[in-house]
Amino acid sequence: MTTARILDFIKTRRPEGPCLVVDLDVVRDNFHAFRHALPDSAIYYAVKANPEPAILKLLASLGSSFDCASVAEIQMALDAGATADRISFGNTIKKERDIARAHALGVGLFAVDSHEEVEKISRAAPGAKVFCRVLTDGEGAEWPLSRKFGCVPQMAVDVLVYAHQLGLESYGVSFHVGSQMTKVDAWDSALADAKRVFSQLAKQGIVLQMVNMGGGFPTKYLRDIPKAEEYGQAISASLRKHFGNNLPKTIIEPGRGMVGNAGVIKAEVVLVSRKSDNDNHRWVFLDIGKFGGLAETMDEAIRYPIRTERDGDEMEPCVLAGPTCDSADVMYEKNMYPLPISLSIGDDVLIEGTGAYTTTYSAVAFNGFEPLKAYVI
Amino acid sequence: MTTARILDFIKTRRPEGPCLVVDLDVVRDNFHAFRHALPDSAIYYAVKANPEPAILKLLASLGSSFDCASVAEIQMALDAGATADRISFGNTIKKERDIARAHALGVGLFAVDSHEEVEKISRAAPGAKVFCRVLTDGEGAEWPLSRKFGCVPQMAVDVLVYAHQLGLESYGVSFHVGSQMTKVDAWDSALADAKRVFSQLAKQGIVLQMVNMGGGFPTKYLRDIPKAEEYGQAISASLRKHFGNNLPKTIIEPGRGMVGNAGVIKAEVVLVSRKSDNDNHRWVFLDIGKFGGLAETMDEAIRYPIRTERDGDEMEPCVLAGPTCDSADVMYEKNMYPLPISLSIGDDVLIEGTGAYTTTYSAVAFNGFEPLKAYVI
Repeated sequence: MTTARILDFIKTRRPEGPCLVVDLDVVRDNFHAFRHALPDSAIYYAVKANPEPAILKLLASLGSSFDCASVAEIQMALDAGATADRISFGNTIKKERDIARAHALGVGLFAVDSHEEVEKISRAAPGAKVFCRVLTDGEGAEWPLSRKFGCVPQMAVDVLVYAHQLGLESYGVSFHVGSQMTKVDAWDSALADAKRVFSQLAKQGIVLQMVNMGGGFPTKYLRDIPKAEEYGQAISASLRKHFGNNLPKTIIEPGRGMVGNAGVIKAEVVLVSRKSDNDNHRWVFLDIGKFGGLAETMDEAIRYPIRTERDGDEMEPCVLAGPTCDSADVMYEKNMYPLPISLSIGDDVLIEGTGAYTTTYSAVAFNGFEPLKAYVI
Repeated sequence: MTTARILDFIKTRRPEGPCLVVDLDVVRDNFHAFRHALPDSAIYYAVKANPEPAILKLLASLGSSFDCASVAEIQMALDAGATADRISFGNTIKKERDIARAHALGVGLFAVDSHEEVEKISRAAPGAKVFCRVLTDGEGAEWPLSRKFGCVPQMAVDVLVYAHQLGLESYGVSFHVGSQMTKVDAWDSALADAKRVFSQLAKQGIVLQMVNMGGGFPTKYLRDIPKAEEYGQAISASLRKHFGNNLPKTIIEPGRGMVGNAGVIKAEVVLVSRKSDNDNHRWVFLDIGKFGGLAETMDEAIRYPIRTERDGDEMEPCVLAGPTCDSADVMYEKNMYPLPISLSIGDDVLIEGTGAYTTTYSAVAFNGFEPLKAYVI
């Protein structure tokens, strides 16, 4: 997964300290794979996954649209060359003054999941398009999906009727099947829910047009994952099954699936030690940890592939931990990580599949450590 | 817990967005309380708890020493006016080049918990003082203490003998009873371990001088906590019990206990909603969450007191969540938080006891949100 370009960059540039290196060629390939898998869906890249300007610029040039979580992300997408009509303000939790700022920047598409949010948008972005997020169960996702976003389908109907009454354009329904979703048929039941919302609104004379099918597309970590094509086939089949010939416009919002496998973190082994003479396992401490960008190791949820210069040597399970004085800064302990016995202090390691949800999660200065640097090549 | 000075600052300055306000008068009071409670112990403020320059400057002027986790923190302590002899490089996981940098800055006191770290220090900071961290069980601590730091006491003996052999000054033993420790007698068994290490080294002609009793001193959240005095009495009694009349030099490293109750986060209610018409509870979304500074709500570990302008009105348990598009950005859900039913979008809330472990944990730009701002008054 570490491309020759990334290896070459690390070898020739020898960047000091932990850093993420992203290969734009992989992002380009991912974009084309999504476009090919779901040719009729608009791609809204989830900026939060990795907002590096060079990534946004590439995707804007390829024709991507952008799913933004804040006004700052909207500004980044605009700076990268996206026009406002290609931006969705996809966060269901927005300050009214941020809605007004987005509206002033030309953004006209907003996510909601409550009557209260509809009221804010009707005041701050009159006439805008809104889509309502519906709760899904997230079964099969490797990153926990809580009930934080969305409302039950029946309430979505009420919310969209209310939006219509307040002069907004009730535009569609969204859902999210859960991040790092490895079941290709996970979209099916949510699409059935979406269709029911469409039908109920149609009875009230409101014609919805769009289904935002969210993200959830996985990146390859240790286990193989289905190809974009397989997701495309399963989703297309579900769309036809539930909507028949009257297909809605659709949106997908890949984040992890767009950039996850495009990035590799170069880190360094700071210490290898044991806690007692007869300790069964070693502790390996890196110069990056849970607070330096690897937040998704929380509860050992995401298990990254790790490459070392000593691969091929005999392996032994280790506890893998970060460099801070925080006892919670341990990545893998319950489920220890096999690493070469010969791994030594000062060795570089490559943590693969780290293009998404790393730099931005990085703490600003925890323990005095700098945030994770990124190089986009 | 919100002082009149903090209330006045928020009222007159009306800072935009979530922010932490720290009252230096409270930090000063805390410093005097520790000094009074343990008059014979040197106070090494744990910089990682809150490295704001004004806090470090005040503590340096009061005579505090500093426990630093990185070269950046060492530099901050020096910039605040501390001399290098008042600085401990307390992280047991250090790059050899960082040890050399600290040594070049004049730092001569280092933490270790392994033979490997001793070797690095002997090369990069020859002749320095080292203390070895011993594992404790952390029972009674409200923030999880893992096995990440320290080694078993028998290994500490070997590590300190090895340090002596490599020309370092084997100076003492350290331990940490666990953060937010509310049992005043928690130091007793660790001090017994420390004494055993002292005795075993004495048999080999190595006279240790110092016990670093770490941090763990709590700050008041919702429950009352023992006073600094009570910790002082319990610790002094344990020291006499285990060391008799031959008392070692001692160090304490308060972080949370020094600044936790000195700070208050001002946040804003962004949304109050329900997931369905018959939902039993509301969701309250703030403009700060787990990735904006409230990382210690992880697993709902730390439960902060929250003040609103509507206190006194009828209360109802709520789910409390942050503003990002991350489903894990929920502070209190399993154990919901009672808040006034009248609480509304746009209301300010004050999150108390947030002077420690907030600003530095803040993500650098997650979802495009700025890191938590701090004002020290």
